[in-house]
Amino acid sequence: MESVITSQSEIATYYRNVRSQTQFLCDPLEIEDFVAQPIVDVSPLKWHLGHTTWFFETFVLIPYFPSYQLFNEKYSYLFNSYYISTGDRWVRASRGQLTRPTVKEIFEYKAHIDKAMEDLFEKVNLIKEIIRLIEVGCHHEQQHQELFLYDVKRILGDNPLFPEYKKISEIAYREKGKGEWLNVEEGVYEIGFEGAGFCFDNERGLHKTFLHEYAIGASLITNREYLDFMEDGGYTNHLLWLSEAWDWQNRNEIKAPRYWHQEDGGEWKNYTLGGFEPIHWTAPVAHISYYEADAFARWKGCRLPTEYEWEVVCGKFSDEVPQNTNFLESNFLRPVQTGTYDFFGNLWEWTSSPYTAYPFFKTADGALGEYNGKFMINQMVLRGGSFATPRSHIRRTYRNFFHPHLRWLFSGIRLAKHK
Amino acid sequence: MESVITSQSEIATYYRNVRSQTQFLCDPLEIEDFVAQPIVDVSPLKWHLGHTTWFFETFVLIPYFPSYQLFNEKYSYLFNSYYISTGDRWVRASRGQLTRPTVKEIFEYKAHIDKAMEDLFEKVNLIKEIIRLIEVGCHHEQQHQELFLYDVKRILGDNPLFPEYKKISEIAYREKGKGEWLNVEEGVYEIGFEGAGFCFDNERGLHKTFLHEYAIGASLITNREYLDFMEDGGYTNHLLWLSEAWDWQNRNEIKAPRYWHQEDGGEWKNYTLGGFEPIHWTAPVAHISYYEADAFARWKGCRLPTEYEWEVVCGKFSDEVPQNTNFLESNFLRPVQTGTYDFFGNLWEWTSSPYTAYPFFKTADGALGEYNGKFMINQMVLRGGSFATPRSHIRRTYRNFFHPHLRWLFSGIRLAKHK
Amino acid sequence: MESVITSQSEIATYYRNVRSQTQFLCDPLEIEDFVAQPIVDVSPLKWHLGHTTWFFETFVLIPYFPSYQLFNEKYSYLFNSYYISTGDRWVRASRGQLTRPTVKEIFEYKAHIDKAMEDLFEKVNLIKEIIRLIEVGCHHEQQHQELFLYDVKRILGDNPLFPEYKKISEIAYREKGKGEWLNVEEGVYEIGFEGAGFCFDNERGLHKTFLHEYAIGASLITNREYLDFMEDGGYTNHLLWLSEAWDWQNRNEIKAPRYWHQEDGGEWKNYTLGGFEPIHWTAPVAHISYYEADAFARWKGCRLPTEYEWEVVCGKFSDEVPQNTNFLESNFLRPVQTGTYDFFGNLWEWTSSPYTAYPFFKTADGALGEYNGKFMINQMVLRGGSFATPRSHIRRTYRNFFHPHLRWLFSGIRLAKHK
Amino acid sequence: MESVITSQSEIATYYRNVRSQTQFLCDPLEIEDFVAQPIVDVSPLKWHLGHTTWFFETFVLIPYFPSYQLFNEKYSYLFNSYYISTGDRWVRASRGQLTRPTVKEIFEYKAHIDKAMEDLFEKVNLIKEIIRLIEVGCHHEQQHQELFLYDVKRILGDNPLFPEYKKISEIAYREKGKGEWLNVEEGVYEIGFEGAGFCFDNERGLHKTFLHEYAIGASLITNREYLDFMEDGGYTNHLLWLSEAWDWQNRNEIKAPRYWHQEDGGEWKNYTLGGFEPIHWTAPVAHISYYEADAFARWKGCRLPTEYEWEVVCGKFSDEVPQNTNFLESNFLRPVQTGTYDFFGNLWEWTSSPYTAYPFFKTADGALGEYNGKFMINQMVLRGGSFATPRSHIRRTYRNFFHPHLRWLFSGIRLAKHK
Repeated sequence: MESVITSQSEIATYYRNVRSQTQFLCDPLEIEDFVAQPIVDVSPLKWHLGHTTWFFETFVLIPYFPSYQLFNEKYSYLFNSYYISTGDRWVRASRGQLTRPTVKEIFEYKAHIDKAMEDLFEKVNLIKEIIRLIEVGCHHEQQHQELFLYDVKRILGDNPLFPEYKKISEIAYREKGKGEWLNVEEGVYEIGFEGAGFCFDNERGLHKTFLHEYAIGASLITNREYLDFMEDGGYTNHLLWLSEAWDWQNRNEIKAPRYWHQEDGGEWKNYTLGGFEPIHWTAPVAHISYYEADAFARWKGCRLPTEYEWEVVCGKFSDEVPQNTNFLESNFLRPVQTGTYDFFGNLWEWTSSPYTAYPFFKTADGALGEYNGKFMINQMVLRGGSFATPRSHIRRTYRNFFHPHLRWLFSGIRLAKHK
Repeated sequence: MESVITSQSEIATYYRNVRSQTQFLCDPLEIEDFVAQPIVDVSPLKWHLGHTTWFFETFVLIPYFPSYQLFNEKYSYLFNSYYISTGDRWVRASRGQLTRPTVKEIFEYKAHIDKAMEDLFEKVNLIKEIIRLIEVGCHHEQQHQELFLYDVKRILGDNPLFPEYKKISEIAYREKGKGEWLNVEEGVYEIGFEGAGFCFDNERGLHKTFLHEYAIGASLITNREYLDFMEDGGYTNHLLWLSEAWDWQNRNEIKAPRYWHQEDGGEWKNYTLGGFEPIHWTAPVAHISYYEADAFARWKGCRLPTEYEWEVVCGKFSDEVPQNTNFLESNFLRPVQTGTYDFFGNLWEWTSSPYTAYPFFKTADGALGEYNGKFMINQMVLRGGSFATPRSHIRRTYRNFFHPHLRWLFSGIRLAKHK
Repeated sequence: MESVITSQSEIATYYRNVRSQTQFLCDPLEIEDFVAQPIVDVSPLKWHLGHTTWFFETFVLIPYFPSYQLFNEKYSYLFNSYYISTGDRWVRASRGQLTRPTVKEIFEYKAHIDKAMEDLFEKVNLIKEIIRLIEVGCHHEQQHQELFLYDVKRILGDNPLFPEYKKISEIAYREKGKGEWLNVEEGVYEIGFEGAGFCFDNERGLHKTFLHEYAIGASLITNREYLDFMEDGGYTNHLLWLSEAWDWQNRNEIKAPRYWHQEDGGEWKNYTLGGFEPIHWTAPVAHISYYEADAFARWKGCRLPTEYEWEVVCGKFSDEVPQNTNFLESNFLRPVQTGTYDFFGNLWEWTSSPYTAYPFFKTADGALGEYNGKFMINQMVLRGGSFATPRSHIRRTYRNFFHPHLRWLFSGIRLAKHK
Repeated sequence: MESVITSQSEIATYYRNVRSQTQFLCDPLEIEDFVAQPIVDVSPLKWHLGHTTWFFETFVLIPYFPSYQLFNEKYSYLFNSYYISTGDRWVRASRGQLTRPTVKEIFEYKAHIDKAMEDLFEKVNLIKEIIRLIEVGCHHEQQHQELFLYDVKRILGDNPLFPEYKKISEIAYREKGKGEWLNVEEGVYEIGFEGAGFCFDNERGLHKTFLHEYAIGASLITNREYLDFMEDGGYTNHLLWLSEAWDWQNRNEIKAPRYWHQEDGGEWKNYTLGGFEPIHWTAPVAHISYYEADAFARWKGCRLPTEYEWEVVCGKFSDEVPQNTNFLESNFLRPVQTGTYDFFGNLWEWTSSPYTAYPFFKTADGALGEYNGKFMINQMVLRGGSFATPRSHIRRTYRNFFHPHLRWLFSGIRLAKHK
């Protein structure tokens, strides 16, 4: 987790921007929405608020700002997520039981920390190490901003009243271009992050890989294409599915992407953060598990790309993030046709790569060593960010990861094949 | 479910009193407190509000008040508890997922129904059948007032911040009198409800029973007496426990009544609705499962009374409810020494009687037939009411029932023995 | 557990008869059949053998026969069922994992104990206390003989090959007589066992009960009558079912008695210990849970009898066990029409009485105190014995008990009603 | 699944050898041992027998030998494992319920198939396709021979009587050589199977990979080294463990390799197929999950090798299988110090590679396409075979795979590191 920022004013600005973005995400919600935890993977929204705040308190203020006064000594127990090194914590699956502290109290906690951080910015000459920790805290909070929206959608979208999170602006939906493949030649390529700028520890360990010649889809799979798969019996043909995937979809009676509902007349609708609406068939299909993405690819006679293939083709065709990329700042709050290759934004793209350590991977020292490395088992890598990712948060080398059955994230499909 | 009330003004007054009591119980809480459902037995507080309101809408307004305008057609799906006859319902275990409708919206729903009920009282000449249904609805809501407090305590009392529900007044704790036994002679006694006044269907079917001579404790078991049991190894002597009870307490590591905590120095404290405080040793022990009550009785060389023994001795020694009974209106919010026999109020008393049908039991017609009868399996009867029971709600013949492992209710112990 | 037997030769004869009956039950089986434990309620057949043998070793030989040489010191750990007082034991749900000791070794263990018992009979002048313990052991083994056949049927009857346990003799199936009710007048009756003869501790505590006038069915419900219930939508009408029963049958997709199968053409067949065969419609319906018996009774506008009602009517109309009762010794291995009232044999009859302590109940001293009393929760009483009950084992006052969802036992239905 | 064998006599000989090896493995067992299924991952031993036999019936005899007479039409339902394409099957978790067919009947089934296969060898001029299928069937059976021994050990080794499977011969235990590292230079290497000889479809797709310079342990980790890890608090230092691994070992109270027991005096013993005995400290540590192997490697400051690193170093240092390799034919039935690098035999070696498709992977056509590909998720690759692997079964390119928490297999640890 190397820092790109070195100046005191720069980190202060970054901190303020990130923290006010969190506030902005909270504004449309009711207090009640902050409490529920429908499944263990979802955290109560007020927990996200408390946890991202606790991160700065625990890793910056307490160790490096001697005059800092603890807001509430019990909060560390409540808002620690999984850092065994920093002490005991309330059990994750029971976060939804905790109606206190109230949302108001957590915002007071947030204000207390923000005030202390401003004092820190003003009074202390920050060494590089502290700037780095603050930057990690900001990226950490940006990750939670995205999770926050997953969880908002999970909470409101499963409610039979289908309340909207907020108005979403109209978009001129357009067809994606013809199916087109981007080709990459075989060769030894470099993978991973190096140089100036921020990255997480799991991207480090610049290393070489050999790739055979391959082709990768120039755009994301659309709702229309996915419906074709469904109508062709995709969910009932066992030959398309991994064994665990087959069991999973049968056990859970999965027949369509998450948030899709078929009305009596047969029309498909889906829940979006703007409420319940007909499906836009040309938009990229979202809320797909790895299991489904893999089955869809097999049905197409293709496969999913490896994360290495993804990183290389992205570097070749889209090294600069295009202007009209659909990021959190676009405020579209759903995937759209952008007319670009969409390597960035729109939807996280499942790769066929299990999440493992790079050859020269080293965990960070101290409690932050628990940040990434300890999850390197039974999860799959996704790349590129989504419409809920802040623009300043994503990179070509960024590795996101989730268990293969999960669908509440903003995930989509891009295909690959060997020539 | 026979009615005692016949006059229009009387039922209107009763309705208003009950409904404002519900409001009174809500006042001390934060909005967040209304959302959580820590276990399936607990319902979100806002669900209780919606459900008791739905009851009047479904069983009174819709069938008997033609001009009634539905507040929201989806609410029946959300607020039906278990009445299969009245349609589909949201799954009980997932009530805590529903952040909407908001507390404010549910209070609007409540106001809408209260307004409609006032219209009904004003405009319709109520036949006996409707008065009866309204009275059932009031008693139903009083039951939920008590459950509401169980659930408030469960939600706040397991929070590591131990927030108080509201200030509880100081009480002069006094010793209970010497252990004293009330004797009843053998004979044929009548059991069940008959005559004027309200009762539930499960109390009807007046019938005779033969009781052998017995004695019953003149007061409830205290915290001190229960601590003696604990300190004598009560929780580790398998001979005292039913087999399922032994497995239950081992699996759940039960070592003390619910809400008791032993501090490092060995001092016992407990959570009350007034917050965390030292245990008052002379007060009746509360939050005891049937399993524990039964084991305690065996340890004492006694047994629990049957519900018939309880009903008969209560009729003999305490037919009138004493003035200083600890009911919901006392606002003590915890069990206390009252100096009476405490057959009423303070704590529900576990009996050794499984909850079954009386000989001449008939379920009510229609959906209300699902009210009581279908739960007559695997539950145990409790008698007498608690400090959270409204005075107008309880009777000598009243049969409450819970599964034997439950402890979040306000339950205590009274012993019995044969002479 | 009082003894009827006082003479040394009598108890020796009883012991030999019971033990050879066990051998007789084993003869038709393959070695493989002795190992499986399909559900926790079923024990491997070889475990039954070892356990009933262990009972005599533990409660008779070790304490009272000083020269007795232990067969294998580890067997107590393997063959103790639930006697916490006699030491640790292998976990019940994992009995099916234990392929050793082999069946042959367990028969050697049995022979070792039988030899030691013969020595005991020959060399020791048995005091009443020892005779009583041996008699308990014999009755204990008779209970396991019946469980043995439940478990044989569960193991073979769920196997898609439907192997027969052994040939069952042809029976002339005849219609039951017209539905007829036996009437009992109201009054105070005596319940429980007293006098000479063996009984278990749970039958003791002779006491009085008041019964209102009632009528009870003169015969058991037949397969035909039960089919009527099924064809009338009995399994889909929620009003007939207890709430837990409704959930149970939906969750488990229960649509017919256990071991019934509907073939493609719609014909019903069932598995019997003699193999797969068409259902005899005039025979009593078997393998019914309490939940189903209760729903059936409600459908008929009747109810199940209480155990007190059963005991009284049996005493009035069938105090002597009829000659042609269908017991284990009949070797029919299934329920048949006997032309008697069938209070004894054929099928255990569910009563509406939860299994609780009689008023003057006292557990036996020592480990045998764990025999009956600790199961007095969440179970229902059955009366009268079945076609798998040894004639010498049953009495009018005998109380059997099972959880209300169980169906692998040989259970049936008799109705009752108030006049 | 390409065949190396082309001649009719060669395949017949191979078939006979494999089938008699299966018989040889059964000989020491009691009939009872063939029935139990202690956990879902273990199959009853008689099921293995039936299933491997069914494989030849289903994939060879039925499609290619018109005169073949089915032994029992229900056996396909009983002995199909997971081939959805070949029809319905008995649920895996309930295999242990099936006491029939008996062991004797299954051996008759085996004899019936063997007879038919001999007819086939004699009467039909086998085309390459059929030979290939028979060869697959033989390799399939060899896989089950190894699973058979895992399951034998699981069944006997968890029995408190600790019965031996069979006598194991004494071995002169010797120290392993000094810790020594084998070095491999960076470069592009070829991975996967090509050329003559049998391999599974998951090894195909010869492809290139780039490896950075690395070193790999010249021998397997010993019991002594693993004890050092344990005594250094390896199981209690969360920093060494993957997050899911930490939860797994806490939930299951894992504190040592499977089959290790610490006696009261502190001495460690373990169960081997030859019975209960003291641990030989210089022998390779076995019955290690991936989770533990990974934690051990981290404790050593090393890591596990990737499957590519393993395949390359094995090709460089041990391309020929050494004479004194510990395979099934050695009949040692446990890991030993062989004095070789032990890439083959002794113990399967966990790699850090999740089991995924090779770049040019193609599933086989037909039902055999379900053999390997559908398991490519959430499992880890192991390499090299074990003491229970038949010599003719293993290859340098062979990819075995198991879920990371499993320990009943014969698995061990080899370390790797970057220079």
